[in-house]
Amino acid sequence: MKAPTLSPKPPRIDGLQYANWSEKIFRQMRAGGVDAVHVTITYHETFRETVLNIEAWNRRFERFADLIFQGRTAADIAIAQATGRTAIFFGSQNPSCIEDDIGLVQVLHTLGLRFMQLSYNNQSLLATGCYEAEDPGLTRMGRAVVAEMNRVGLVVDMSHSGERSTLDAIAHSTRPIAITHANPFTWHPALRNKSDKVLKALAESGGILGLSLYPHHLKGGSGCALTEFCEMVARSVDLVGIGALAIGSDLCQDQPDSVVEWMRTGRWTKSVDFGEGSADAPGFPAMPGWFQDNRHFGTIEAGLAKFGMSEAEVSAIMGGNWANFFTRSFDAVPAQPERPAL
Amino acid sequence: MKAPTLSPKPPRIDGLQYANWSEKIFRQMRAGGVDAVHVTITYHETFRETVLNIEAWNRRFERFADLIFQGRTAADIAIAQATGRTAIFFGSQNPSCIEDDIGLVQVLHTLGLRFMQLSYNNQSLLATGCYEAEDPGLTRMGRAVVAEMNRVGLVVDMSHSGERSTLDAIAHSTRPIAITHANPFTWHPALRNKSDKVLKALAESGGILGLSLYPHHLKGGSGCALTEFCEMVARSVDLVGIGALAIGSDLCQDQPDSVVEWMRTGRWTKSVDFGEGSADAPGFPAMPGWFQDNRHFGTIEAGLAKFGMSEAEVSAIMGGNWANFFTRSFDAVPAQPERPAL
Repeated sequence: MKAPTLSPKPPRIDGLQYANWSEKIFRQMRAGGVDAVHVTITYHETFRETVLNIEAWNRRFERFADLIFQGRTAADIAIAQATGRTAIFFGSQNPSCIEDDIGLVQVLHTLGLRFMQLSYNNQSLLATGCYEAEDPGLTRMGRAVVAEMNRVGLVVDMSHSGERSTLDAIAHSTRPIAITHANPFTWHPALRNKSDKVLKALAESGGILGLSLYPHHLKGGSGCALTEFCEMVARSVDLVGIGALAIGSDLCQDQPDSVVEWMRTGRWTKSVDFGEGSADAPGFPAMPGWFQDNRHFGTIEAGLAKFGMSEAEVSAIMGGNWANFFTRSFDAVPAQPERPAL
Repeated sequence: MKAPTLSPKPPRIDGLQYANWSEKIFRQMRAGGVDAVHVTITYHETFRETVLNIEAWNRRFERFADLIFQGRTAADIAIAQATGRTAIFFGSQNPSCIEDDIGLVQVLHTLGLRFMQLSYNNQSLLATGCYEAEDPGLTRMGRAVVAEMNRVGLVVDMSHSGERSTLDAIAHSTRPIAITHANPFTWHPALRNKSDKVLKALAESGGILGLSLYPHHLKGGSGCALTEFCEMVARSVDLVGIGALAIGSDLCQDQPDSVVEWMRTGRWTKSVDFGEGSADAPGFPAMPGWFQDNRHFGTIEAGLAKFGMSEAEVSAIMGGNWANFFTRSFDAVPAQPERPAL
């Protein structure tokens, strides 16, 4: 393995994927020049079940060591570029993995977890999800866990959380937070998309938004045109500034529909919850024609350039801003003894 | 924190302790100039229970950051010396923590586990304990787990294992193994002490023996004199050479007797098993007067010097050999893809 050197090429980074992982997909990451991906490793799984998912990733890192490796710090982006592989950073879309135990925050960070959503659609022990009728904001445990996440370097992700909880998290967190995969509500008024108030507060606090390619977050759904998406990106730059925006594709490639059912329903109801879907369309929606898999990030990049964005702006959105955010977010605050040293 | 520099002072390292951890004990480690300790964090605990024990250690590392920190690689010995703290390396005395799941070997190594016994007195899923009547050697899973431990850098420890299993482990392991806490059987014929055959095979394979201060492993028990212990050390050097010997004190300081009952009995029997003790003396035995706690390593060092060992020999036994063993043992074998790269 070559020693990592700073590449002159700006990194290409995706802020969220949850695919049915395979050698094919890892080769598509390489073909698409994707240097780093934040992947979801767990939704409603308990701690032990999450560890089983980590074990499955360990096997993938072993089998496909020429294509992927586990990302732990921002420096791994340069290692990915220098060695022609993709750095995989772990995230959780719900805090089920820490159960009711704040000690698991550090344990999971040690195992590589770098993002954790405080809630997923529903109320959690920490915060409220975006589908609840009422959002009372961060809970007592939520505030304690955010402080612990800040300490160890585990990023607070509010993609599936409610408005008040999200504003609470931005205010309470001492480090910038992320909304890894969502779009502006003003562009497409879905419950999962975010108000201008949230987006401005996010950007002002140094946080970041991964703009989503998932059809339920797009105006026109699967039929949304590339130019429409690019126009939304440009308007978002006008709203919050270039530094707070990136891509979080929410690519759920090759997943059977049983997986979206698990994502939405977990073990919390005996009924069917269709989430962003409906009884008529309960499965995964078809991705837009211009973004089918990891090979198509270049299409978005070209689309943004064609729309009039500068080279610097395009590379900030396609990875530079995530690289900057990773640098600020993943390291632990240096240990200080809780008692004065004698 | 100062940058670590190579200290001219040879390190002082203990190969096994299982104390009732407290600020008092950590201060005694500092007073005794102990740079690194392999501590037992789990016996019969499941994976989840072991993680709870790791969480308790994380709290100690946070509270007592001026006295201790978690050791992960041999380089942490120099960091300990440069910053005036003790590096704590995790170990397990039984493989209960990996349950029946080989994937937990890497997970626990990532969480810092550096030693794991393949069995504790009884038969395990991996190997036979030293109190079983029959020892059929390493099991099928045992061979698979040893290979995985070799890959990730988790040291095989056979302190409480049977003779044949121990010889099997030495032969099967591609990296040197440890017997972290035991003495020669010829000196004191306890079931926990090791035959000359085992000790020679251990040393010839590059392995290491931590000589024990636990009274049940000492000739004369709690009444064993320092000179008798030092004579045994010198005879062991004659038998296996200076490079294979170190200290593994087995200090169980400040523990209530309920802990030794857990160590011996776990959840495997409804009866009482007295292990090395007896119905008359079921509790922890009193340590020898010349080794009560971490402040007394200097006493052993002086005793060895007085007995005629050279300065180089004494420092090898008091820590140099462990430092060398740590350097060879804790790193993972570099990842090689299991398929040829295209």
